Amino acid sequence: MVEYADASPEVRAVFDDIMAVRGTDWINNFWKALAHDPVTLRRTWESIKQIMAPGALDPMTKELLYVAVSTTNQCPYCIASHTAAARKAGMTDAMFGELMAVVGMANETNRLASGYQVKIDPQFGG
Amino acid sequence: MVEYADASPEVRAVFDDIMAVRGTDWINNFWKALAHDPVTLRRTWESIKQIMAPGALDPMTKELLYVAVSTTNQCPYCIASHTAAARKAGMTDAMFGELMAVVGMANETNRLASGYQVKIDPQFGG
Amino acid sequence: MVEYADASPEVRAVFDDIMAVRGTDWINNFWKALAHDPVTLRRTWESIKQIMAPGALDPMTKELLYVAVSTTNQCPYCIASHTAAARKAGMTDAMFGELMAVVGMANETNRLASGYQVKIDPQFGG
Amino acid sequence: MVEYADASPEVRAVFDDIMAVRGTDWINNFWKALAHDPVTLRRTWESIKQIMAPGALDPMTKELLYVAVSTTNQCPYCIASHTAAARKAGMTDAMFGELMAVVGMANETNRLASGYQVKIDPQFGG
Amino acid sequence: MVEYADASPEVRAVFDDIMAVRGTDWINNFWKALAHDPVTLRRTWESIKQIMAPGALDPMTKELLYVAVSTTNQCPYCIASHTAAARKAGMTDAMFGELMAVVGMANETNRLASGYQVKIDPQFGG
Amino acid sequence: MVEYADASPEVRAVFDDIMAVRGTDWINNFWKALAHDPVTLRRTWESIKQIMAPGALDPMTKELLYVAVSTTNQCPYCIASHTAAARKAGMTDAMFGELMAVVGMANETNRLASGYQVKIDPQFGG
Repeated sequence: MVEYADASPEVRAVFDDIMAVRGTDWINNFWKALAHDPVTLRRTWESIKQIMAPGALDPMTKELLYVAVSTTNQCPYCIASHTAAARKAGMTDAMFGELMAVVGMANETNRLASGYQVKIDPQFGG
Repeated sequence: MVEYADASPEVRAVFDDIMAVRGTDWINNFWKALAHDPVTLRRTWESIKQIMAPGALDPMTKELLYVAVSTTNQCPYCIASHTAAARKAGMTDAMFGELMAVVGMANETNRLASGYQVKIDPQFGG
Repeated sequence: MVEYADASPEVRAVFDDIMAVRGTDWINNFWKALAHDPVTLRRTWESIKQIMAPGALDPMTKELLYVAVSTTNQCPYCIASHTAAARKAGMTDAMFGELMAVVGMANETNRLASGYQVKIDPQFGG
Repeated sequence: MVEYADASPEVRAVFDDIMAVRGTDWINNFWKALAHDPVTLRRTWESIKQIMAPGALDPMTKELLYVAVSTTNQCPYCIASHTAAARKAGMTDAMFGELMAVVGMANETNRLASGYQVKIDPQFGG
Repeated sequence: MVEYADASPEVRAVFDDIMAVRGTDWINNFWKALAHDPVTLRRTWESIKQIMAPGALDPMTKELLYVAVSTTNQCPYCIASHTAAARKAGMTDAMFGELMAVVGMANETNRLASGYQVKIDPQFGG
Repeated sequence: MVEYADASPEVRAVFDDIMAVRGTDWINNFWKALAHDPVTLRRTWESIKQIMAPGALDPMTKELLYVAVSTTNQCPYCIASHTAAARKAGMTDAMFGELMAVVGMANETNRLASGYQVKIDPQFGG
């Protein structure tokens, strides 16, 4: 991992922007690892900054979606970091419980739909 | 698929409840397929009815989460049906665009995190 | 796809063995597609023939497992072909219903376990 | 995690039923984690109790299917806990070896089928 | 889908750049669909243009990797479009056969490694 | 795990061949775990030896593909072992950075394609 003290100016510029946008004074390991490839570091950060900004969906909803995807993909790092981010953005215990329930159920019915070979209804565009 | 006209009383009871809760007058293919196994039909419907009801998270947010999982899993039926449900629950074009952007990005960074073998930060419980 | 009439002798030899082992007089599309690469065709068939043969697990159980994996992976071809194979091997409607129920539930609890970041119990080797 | 000693009466009732049905005197971490959301705890347990009970498929076969799904999804907790459950239900070393062989092969041919863009045969409903 | 004739100037600018970079005179459906969200359209195209350009890895190798991921994820659109792109970039029939063989094998051994709960060797950083 | 000193002659024969082909003097944990099932051990090794040998694709490209699949599937053991194998086969830091960028991007656009329900273009066989 690339620590701030050892980072090149271009990497430090991204690290500084991450801390400024997030209002934190530390960089999590994901970015320190990506810093080995400054081009990917910058592109990924610029994309995330754009995508996760408030828009038609609020930041907490976007973090809930991030947790839903990360949980479905079984990515331990992403589950840990985005669950923390969701809580910071306002997710309560009750919201987390419902999030997990929906994610679990969706993963179940996704397989029931495929296993039963269900055809898409005309009403849904099938 | 089991059509309403051919359904047993126990299947009809579930079909009736689905239409009543959703305020619709038709049953989509997913439930007609599950109706071959009335026990699974009832359990799945009772679970979904409980999970998708308004709670700490509103119904539209729950449908967004359902689309996020279904898209990650590449389930065509589930994507089509829950995108329709999300729109019915209030998802606008702008929301859909942001939903897709978050889902795409999360799937990307999930792999960057695993491929770079990033360790969970102590701040995230690692 | 490579049809029997157009196949090389080495491909025909594999096709003949498939039909002999399965007691059928036709070749399904999977093998006709693989026949473009006779090395992969032979290796895949020899592996499947060895793995799916009766052993400590009976052939029907092995086909149920194949459907479980294929459903989890959302592979339409594999779901269709191995569901047919499972029925041919003795899977009843009731068994299929229970198979789907287990596969759906496992996919649900897999995500509950990861999303809740559950640590492996010492009793399970954790 | 919610330990038995700290659990509410409604959570204890579920814990008691889990131990009674399974004939054990301890609760594994999965349930202790779910206990943060008593509604999900109860619904998940009631569903699993119904689904994993002896039926058209015997309990060991159901545990084999659970391991097959969990292995495909790369869920470490689920692999550890359901492999233990399968052994308790009668899975021998030879059965485990064949289970792994089928799961591995199915994951391989699932990708050969999709990568070669194989069309479903009319005989399989295509 | 947004056709060129109906596209806004900002969408047309991206479409023009896609055709210029690729040396083609048509736009495939993926971009026409993304055009509903011009922000995602531009960001996705700029990212792909940067990532898929010749670098330490040549363009054909990058397309092979794209097919490997798409096949693993069972994404029919992505398999079809990137297999075509790989062939355009120089992939021969023999290369495609070996690509499929590696992808299939990797998906198999990924599950053998997880199912057998293999610990990472110290030599690999474990 | 089965150590060399404790291995049966048939397992030792496979271990010896692995070390000979790879030019190493140790066996990694994957093979020691598979050694519990000598039939699977031999079949898996013979398949990998055949598939990963130089052919239309060079060994380093094959290892890059293996990492791409393993990263997509979130298999920690496979990521660690095949990243090491790719480096041994010649993968530079710059190549690894581009590999990760392609894998991440492909996982993103796979979901954009499915979530937007993009139809396959006639030019791609749709």
